[in-house]
Amino acid sequence: MFKDILDNVAVKTPLVHSITNYVTVNDCANILLASGAAPIMADDENEVEEITSLCHALVINIGTLNSRTINSMIIAGKKASLLAHPVVLDPVGAGASKLRTDTAFQLLNEIKFSVIRGNISEIKTIAQGNGNTKGVEADVRDAITEDNLDEAIAFIKKLSVRTGAIIAVTGAIDIVADSRKAYIIRNGHALMSKITGTGCMLTEVIAAYCAANPDSLLVATAAAVCAMGLCGELAHSKLTEVDGGTSTYRMLLIDCMSKLNSKMLSEGMKIESR
Amino acid sequence: MFKDILDNVAVKTPLVHSITNYVTVNDCANILLASGAAPIMADDENEVEEITSLCHALVINIGTLNSRTINSMIIAGKKASLLAHPVVLDPVGAGASKLRTDTAFQLLNEIKFSVIRGNISEIKTIAQGNGNTKGVEADVRDAITEDNLDEAIAFIKKLSVRTGAIIAVTGAIDIVADSRKAYIIRNGHALMSKITGTGCMLTEVIAAYCAANPDSLLVATAAAVCAMGLCGELAHSKLTEVDGGTSTYRMLLIDCMSKLNSKMLSEGMKIESR
Amino acid sequence: MFKDILDNVAVKTPLVHSITNYVTVNDCANILLASGAAPIMADDENEVEEITSLCHALVINIGTLNSRTINSMIIAGKKASLLAHPVVLDPVGAGASKLRTDTAFQLLNEIKFSVIRGNISEIKTIAQGNGNTKGVEADVRDAITEDNLDEAIAFIKKLSVRTGAIIAVTGAIDIVADSRKAYIIRNGHALMSKITGTGCMLTEVIAAYCAANPDSLLVATAAAVCAMGLCGELAHSKLTEVDGGTSTYRMLLIDCMSKLNSKMLSEGMKIESR
Repeated sequence: MFKDILDNVAVKTPLVHSITNYVTVNDCANILLASGAAPIMADDENEVEEITSLCHALVINIGTLNSRTINSMIIAGKKASLLAHPVVLDPVGAGASKLRTDTAFQLLNEIKFSVIRGNISEIKTIAQGNGNTKGVEADVRDAITEDNLDEAIAFIKKLSVRTGAIIAVTGAIDIVADSRKAYIIRNGHALMSKITGTGCMLTEVIAAYCAANPDSLLVATAAAVCAMGLCGELAHSKLTEVDGGTSTYRMLLIDCMSKLNSKMLSEGMKIESR
Repeated sequence: MFKDILDNVAVKTPLVHSITNYVTVNDCANILLASGAAPIMADDENEVEEITSLCHALVINIGTLNSRTINSMIIAGKKASLLAHPVVLDPVGAGASKLRTDTAFQLLNEIKFSVIRGNISEIKTIAQGNGNTKGVEADVRDAITEDNLDEAIAFIKKLSVRTGAIIAVTGAIDIVADSRKAYIIRNGHALMSKITGTGCMLTEVIAAYCAANPDSLLVATAAAVCAMGLCGELAHSKLTEVDGGTSTYRMLLIDCMSKLNSKMLSEGMKIESR
Repeated sequence: MFKDILDNVAVKTPLVHSITNYVTVNDCANILLASGAAPIMADDENEVEEITSLCHALVINIGTLNSRTINSMIIAGKKASLLAHPVVLDPVGAGASKLRTDTAFQLLNEIKFSVIRGNISEIKTIAQGNGNTKGVEADVRDAITEDNLDEAIAFIKKLSVRTGAIIAVTGAIDIVADSRKAYIIRNGHALMSKITGTGCMLTEVIAAYCAANPDSLLVATAAAVCAMGLCGELAHSKLTEVDGGTSTYRMLLIDCMSKLNSKMLSEGMKIESR
């Protein structure tokens, strides 16, 4: 099941349209290419409908949202929904400002998302309007631990029912769930939080995998979360060999994604379902 | 002839003004520095005339165009033309949306470009309004091959007559031509298409080489295309040694440009003229 | 004294809000993380007050300013001043266009900056309105040398009196001064000017160090300048080992910042005061 996910990406080379932030946009484009997909970034309201129509999936990331691009996000999101493309939301910093929280709610009201990926504070904000977002990082008070895992899963499944979207919450422990089934994923490395863009890049990989596997969105999303976490682990092993720092780590992370195959993923994924 | 091109860049350190996309802008700035030139990015309509006046060349890249920057492109382009600076157009994604195609035509109508560089689908769009642009990638149906090479050269020379610009079409085989003479270039490596920005970076290098060689624009453009392709080959050799992935390849590509000299270029270029 | 600066960053993990340019923004985010701080970029006028309120310092960098973001800079700067957060100005390209020069003066009129960091041409523009800014690079005619060092220090101290800000002028020789005391710093490497963003990154590190050391802004700023220069030296040593080019150098520079500690800094800093 997980095996086919990557092979389908390789076969289809899905084209992913991203309306995303200017901080990590280059990493987003490169991780898509490394994943076997192809990127196009376009955010003007006069072209987003056409561009998204050419593509196989859409990412909406509110990391550096502004009044001009919010409108483009809505136009593109509606068009992609209409075309039944996977649409993935990354509500970066939801909870950190009224603009971000309001925009996240506006997007959720107007667009049917396939997947919503965020850290736990962002996801809590979306669910309840009260996550403790610290800038663009999750607050430690919100963290998912072994102790509150079942509670977190129930919470996430309920949010999936309400939004109709697969929810992917990433942190030390990742949860990917729809209304019925949850995957708990323990891949990843703490160093991933010392470079910018790992969350944004994961969102792109989710879109790529979903675009190539439109009938298996939950499995595709879980596979993407495993893949990114596994690359984080593999990159850390290589980093230790070369005694590098965080910038080398960023490079190795994308390198590992460009070399990942089904066999490596199936052997390295640390996943269970509940 | 080709020998002097790089030496002139080293002597003059041309300053290149770029109005470009936010996906690859950092790579564009770094490749200019690696090439021996210096970058300045400025896109506000209230300063582009002054900024471009300080510079020796202008790049207009429509990769993430929007209504605000289109106007700046026109203002800057007109000023640079007036000052007889080399002006290079990179019509990223022309054909993928009406906005991009219309903007490309508007720019061509209002600005006298020295060089237009794109993939074959973008160039066909500019010539005929009907290239099969797939997002920002060329469509395989458009590809230049050994079989249609003479036909492609004739087509490109005709477009040069019509636009008054040197045309650089890049892909597996590259063609650089004006109305009279065409260079066919076979440098490059397939892996260049697995990182974002190789096209955008090449456009910057063309601007740098043209800025330092204003009386030899055709040769300067051909040299830049050879240089970028050769760096793609050299970077691939190094990549094999270190067993790296696509992100390492991106780094090595810029590294190679920073170490390229006239001797390496003249020994490595694979060029013929027709 | 210098020793505590880095330790305080490690303990406090300051959150830095940056309104900066899209050329080097990714490097800015990564150097903040490498320095032990955390980044958030937000530039919409409807959220900058809230975002900056969550943070411990603010950076305003006019590298790719536009009419939309200038207003956000002013709103954020006023709020951060009100909250007594360190506010750092990087007047990129002041003197290169009327828009940049006017914006720099407008920002200086409306916001109380803690630190202003620029190259000598930018700082002369701020002081006198007539620096010989060449694009975003300093003009050689403006350079600080051993011969004009005392004159430069007097000039910088006077500017500090007038603006109430610590002034950090960076180049081959760096000067960090308030109205009473000047540090002269001789760390750094010439190769730092062959990659984009070293100035922008330094400005972020200054903000991070000041945020964690609000009662020692002069020392914190001097420490940041030493740290960045020292990382430039260390990265150059590593570069020689691996025979890399400028892109490898960029990576090694950020790597070195991620590995820098108090002991390395105190042993490597080349600083005197006058």
